[in-house]
Amino acid sequence: MKTLYIIGIGAGDPDHLTLQAVRAMNAAEVLFIPHKGRDKQDLNQIRKQLCERVIAHRDYRLVDFAMPVRESEPNAYSQSVAHWHAELESTYGDLIAEHLAEAQTGAFLVWGDPSLYDGTIRVLTRLHARIGGFDWEVIPGISSIQALAARHKIPLNGIGENILITPGRKLPESIPDNIDNLVVMLDSRSHLSRLTGQHLHIHWGANIGTPGEELIEGPLDQAWPRIETARQRIREAQGWVMDTSLIRRIRPDQR
Amino acid sequence: MKTLYIIGIGAGDPDHLTLQAVRAMNAAEVLFIPHKGRDKQDLNQIRKQLCERVIAHRDYRLVDFAMPVRESEPNAYSQSVAHWHAELESTYGDLIAEHLAEAQTGAFLVWGDPSLYDGTIRVLTRLHARIGGFDWEVIPGISSIQALAARHKIPLNGIGENILITPGRKLPESIPDNIDNLVVMLDSRSHLSRLTGQHLHIHWGANIGTPGEELIEGPLDQAWPRIETARQRIREAQGWVMDTSLIRRIRPDQR
Ligand SMILES: C[S@@+](CC[C@H](N)C(=O)[O-])C[C@H]1O[C@@H](n2cnc3c(N)ncnc32)[C@H](O)[C@@H]1O
Ligand SMILES: C[S@@+](CC[C@H](N)C(=O)[O-])C[C@H]1O[C@@H](n2cnc3c(N)ncnc32)[C@H](O)[C@@H]1O
Repeated sequence: MKTLYIIGIGAGDPDHLTLQAVRAMNAAEVLFIPHKGRDKQDLNQIRKQLCERVIAHRDYRLVDFAMPVRESEPNAYSQSVAHWHAELESTYGDLIAEHLAEAQTGAFLVWGDPSLYDGTIRVLTRLHARIGGFDWEVIPGISSIQALAARHKIPLNGIGENILITPGRKLPESIPDNIDNLVVMLDSRSHLSRLTGQHLHIHWGANIGTPGEELIEGPLDQAWPRIETARQRIREAQGWVMDTSLIRRIRPDQR
Repeated sequence: MKTLYIIGIGAGDPDHLTLQAVRAMNAAEVLFIPHKGRDKQDLNQIRKQLCERVIAHRDYRLVDFAMPVRESEPNAYSQSVAHWHAELESTYGDLIAEHLAEAQTGAFLVWGDPSLYDGTIRVLTRLHARIGGFDWEVIPGISSIQALAARHKIPLNGIGENILITPGRKLPESIPDNIDNLVVMLDSRSHLSRLTGQHLHIHWGANIGTPGEELIEGPLDQAWPRIETARQRIREAQGWVMDTSLIRRIRPDQR
């Protein structure tokens, strides 16, 4: 049997690696490292540096592979992603067949936590059902949401409250009545701007845990233009920008 | 200046500690370890064993302290918790004043991630605003939600979907129309049972990452009685039970 680990590596800070992740990385003979185009080159480097830093021996192989490129619109988003996952499935199948001998262990290093807005679990589930021949395990990692809260030193929820995590493209026009705290991820198109003028407060962070990290906090209406500027500045300086927000209502007595 | 770390230690598995957490634990001269009554004695032990396991020197002190007990109903839940946090604030203030000399570093070890359904950040924020005299930092940890997803090897969300995290006492009568995936925590009174008869699927886990871990998966209507039985069995065997669930709709074509 081959063994595969899907390892959450945290969302930027190399010290977010868990002891379990370090152990799994040391157990892997082959580490599969995606590259996704020039601007994300940096993320590829971060993964390689992690390996150098925490793997105690030199008997491992890094296998670089090109991530299939996802078509963008006009196809429906979930269809385009589903199609992309099908391509990933065959890419992963090839990688395992080519680079992993029987009884060897391979690892995929996943940004943040593997359960949150990442396709690797879905792809390996399907591949396992279709061709089998490997055991696999998932190793949780610190997600960008937890990194955001920690850097701002805030809880995600008030006492007894709920938390909605939403991708930017599903962002509602306002915070729904049944929701107390709103976390927004995957908002590359700045859907956030539609929440201005609604007495909301934002805790925002970009490239958290990396040298380019920026944090902004305040009433959303005032924070918004600063966030736009910061995003552009970070993208120019670091080559990529990923940001996460926590948004809540400002209570009438606090306005 | 005194320094305080709020350290997320993961939700049961000692290997969920991050490198950052291990470093902070090694930097602390004093580690504050709560005990909360006889049945949770085990959690107190887990924290002490973590210290022995990952702190490389023996120059640290463990300070056990009694957690103030939270009044239960009939007071409104959030009032009772707010009152409890006020008591905690004075307890923490006393601990810092008594046990931490100037320029020393202390640590609170928080279950899971400190930003999720935990009062420590709120309490230290208030204490800091009121008396100051210390710097503090938050170190994120693997939450029970991530542990649940990893053990079941599932993503929390389908492509482009959102995720609602709710405490049991705020659990709606059904999954709201605007929600795709529902995570339920803090459900000691089994509010979950109200979701039966609605074509839902559940991934459930209790005491995840500990020797008493149990996982159950299936249509909620069939899983529910097994969950009730498992909960009781674990409570008797381990002295405490904490469980987390991920619930989604079963699509009409899959019923
Ligand atoms: C494809 S999702 C992957 C999420 C990842 N699995 C996690 O657990 O954080 C990418 C999104 O995560 C968030 N993100 C990832 N890394 C981040 C970072 N270092 N700072 C801020 N947000 C980040 C952004 O919302 C970004 O659009
Ligand atoms: C007071 S909250 C603390 C949550 C914690 N800060 C976290 O990040 O997981 C306690 C709740 O967390 C969940 N929980 C904590 N540890 C767990 C475990 N080992 N297995 C399953 N659920 C757990 C349960 O829902 C429990 O009621």
